[in-house]
Amino acid sequence: MRIEELGEAELIKIIRQVVKSRQHLSVGIGDDACVLRDGKTVLTTDAYAQGVHFDPAYMNYHDIGSRCACACISDVVAMAAEPVILLVALALPKETVSSDVRKLYQGMEAVCQKMNCEIAGGDIIAFDRLILSLTALGRADTPRLRSDARPGEFLYLTGYAGLAETGRLLLAREKEKADRSTPRAQAAIKRHLLPLPRIQIIRKLKLQIGALIDTSDGLATDASHIAEMSRVRVVIYPQQIPIHAATFRLCQRLGINPVNFALTAGEDYELLFTSKEKLPNRIINIPVSMIGRIEPGRGLYREENGAIRPIKERGYDHLTTRNKPSDVDNLWKNCG
Amino acid sequence: MRIEELGEAELIKIIRQVVKSRQHLSVGIGDDACVLRDGKTVLTTDAYAQGVHFDPAYMNYHDIGSRCACACISDVVAMAAEPVILLVALALPKETVSSDVRKLYQGMEAVCQKMNCEIAGGDIIAFDRLILSLTALGRADTPRLRSDARPGEFLYLTGYAGLAETGRLLLAREKEKADRSTPRAQAAIKRHLLPLPRIQIIRKLKLQIGALIDTSDGLATDASHIAEMSRVRVVIYPQQIPIHAATFRLCQRLGINPVNFALTAGEDYELLFTSKEKLPNRIINIPVSMIGRIEPGRGLYREENGAIRPIKERGYDHLTTRNKPSDVDNLWKNCG
Repeated sequence: MRIEELGEAELIKIIRQVVKSRQHLSVGIGDDACVLRDGKTVLTTDAYAQGVHFDPAYMNYHDIGSRCACACISDVVAMAAEPVILLVALALPKETVSSDVRKLYQGMEAVCQKMNCEIAGGDIIAFDRLILSLTALGRADTPRLRSDARPGEFLYLTGYAGLAETGRLLLAREKEKADRSTPRAQAAIKRHLLPLPRIQIIRKLKLQIGALIDTSDGLATDASHIAEMSRVRVVIYPQQIPIHAATFRLCQRLGINPVNFALTAGEDYELLFTSKEKLPNRIINIPVSMIGRIEPGRGLYREENGAIRPIKERGYDHLTTRNKPSDVDNLWKNCG
Repeated sequence: MRIEELGEAELIKIIRQVVKSRQHLSVGIGDDACVLRDGKTVLTTDAYAQGVHFDPAYMNYHDIGSRCACACISDVVAMAAEPVILLVALALPKETVSSDVRKLYQGMEAVCQKMNCEIAGGDIIAFDRLILSLTALGRADTPRLRSDARPGEFLYLTGYAGLAETGRLLLAREKEKADRSTPRAQAAIKRHLLPLPRIQIIRKLKLQIGALIDTSDGLATDASHIAEMSRVRVVIYPQQIPIHAATFRLCQRLGINPVNFALTAGEDYELLFTSKEKLPNRIINIPVSMIGRIEPGRGLYREENGAIRPIKERGYDHLTTRNKPSDVDNLWKNCG
């Protein structure tokens, strides 16, 4: 069977069958990052390709570098770890000019500076398209996992759901050109171009966090990962999902339901986590919304007007052709 | 300026200008791998692309996986470290069948099994060509660096210089088809397809090793890295360079000088190292040849019949168009 028919989850099953444990890991395949046997060192790698993860049509090399660095470091932060090292493997077109390579590294360096992380070299090969493959190493006193949710906890989300995808659509859709300069549009565009990981929240909350994941595949998919890995039932309150004014406006224009958009739009790189505590709705000036609860059981549900029903929506699977991010106008057509 | 004109060394200079140290590393950009502040954890990342580093015309997915795993882990071994973790970021064509993904991981797993290393997950994206980006983490009591050579030491090489490239040419050149089945050709082909890092030599010699590097860019280029980074003069004895019978035969047919071929052919992934000691010429059944000496001064030289002159030959630079590995018949034409 071809991988586009299989999807990511099935492929991971195949890989798990082949890969043998040699007792070097305390957390292996299946979380945002792996954890070494010391229980403190977390390690993750991600590949980002032109036309799949970034679009040079509206991103310069600084934007590409900073966005990819945010995305990779987000996986370390999503283990409740401090990022330490970023390794960079680059495939560069031969005609790339050196000033663009400089901008690419300046973009990554700017993010590393904010995160107190250090670029430690890597590899450069000549290729016909730009690909970044980034590896981040971090340290956590107690890594928080997707499997750490317990019944009775609340479900929290930082920032806004769907804001980064709103920004991407504002940039990618020629029809939105007139609307790009408003402050609300700018907030969305910023979250797409520079989705800085919420390391401050990790530092502040520490042991108050139960399960933890970043929202990269879409809120529904990422929440379902917590449900599966923790073997619990996650109940989301759709009215409590934080949706930005820019997203409301865009959804209105596209004629789609903003809650469904927020459940399925990917790459916000916000923190989705559980906690026993009732948390304030802003922490160090970052919105923190209680959007659901953890119960005994299995699966992902929504509760509205006293009725509970399963959430079937899922976000982006990079391997299947279900959603094709470059096909902007078709991407959301079934999302009404 | 375009990167194909700049070359790898100039590009690394640009990157060094941009990247700031944050005291997380004891060895940063410029060696086979970086070393974390603990002085023991080494980390490296490498990208391998179809048409650049491997050729599906004569390699199956198992071959591709095992060869790339060897190449990446070699950078850890070249720091005198034991490999521990291998992370895999994959760009896969959507039409890849799942059995090929399985073979790819089986190839990597087979190498990890021999090296006591563990595959710890990673990332998979859909793309139009196959790219592997591998990250290896290892542990060394005392990492050995390119900069650790001292005057008075001897220069050693494991295995044979140019054997892997001999194997590649035997596979890639239709004209060599008849010669592929001889035992000597098979040895060359094996070193190309499965260049297992010489971890046994590291375990055996340990503190007897001074400077250490693997031969990935070609013996001359890699020896010049030791000369530059250690600020010493490296004098090579051309007659002592270990050249395999398969290489002699191929060079005879191509009408090129086997010593020059051995100096410039890349991707043997043998260990090139210095030592104060006089070592036996086989260690755990691996050939170990004394091929030169370290002196005060700078640069790379060859000594023949009492005369010393600079070595100008250099191996493969992945970024420039000087050598194009796919252009088999032209690659070595200036190497007579």
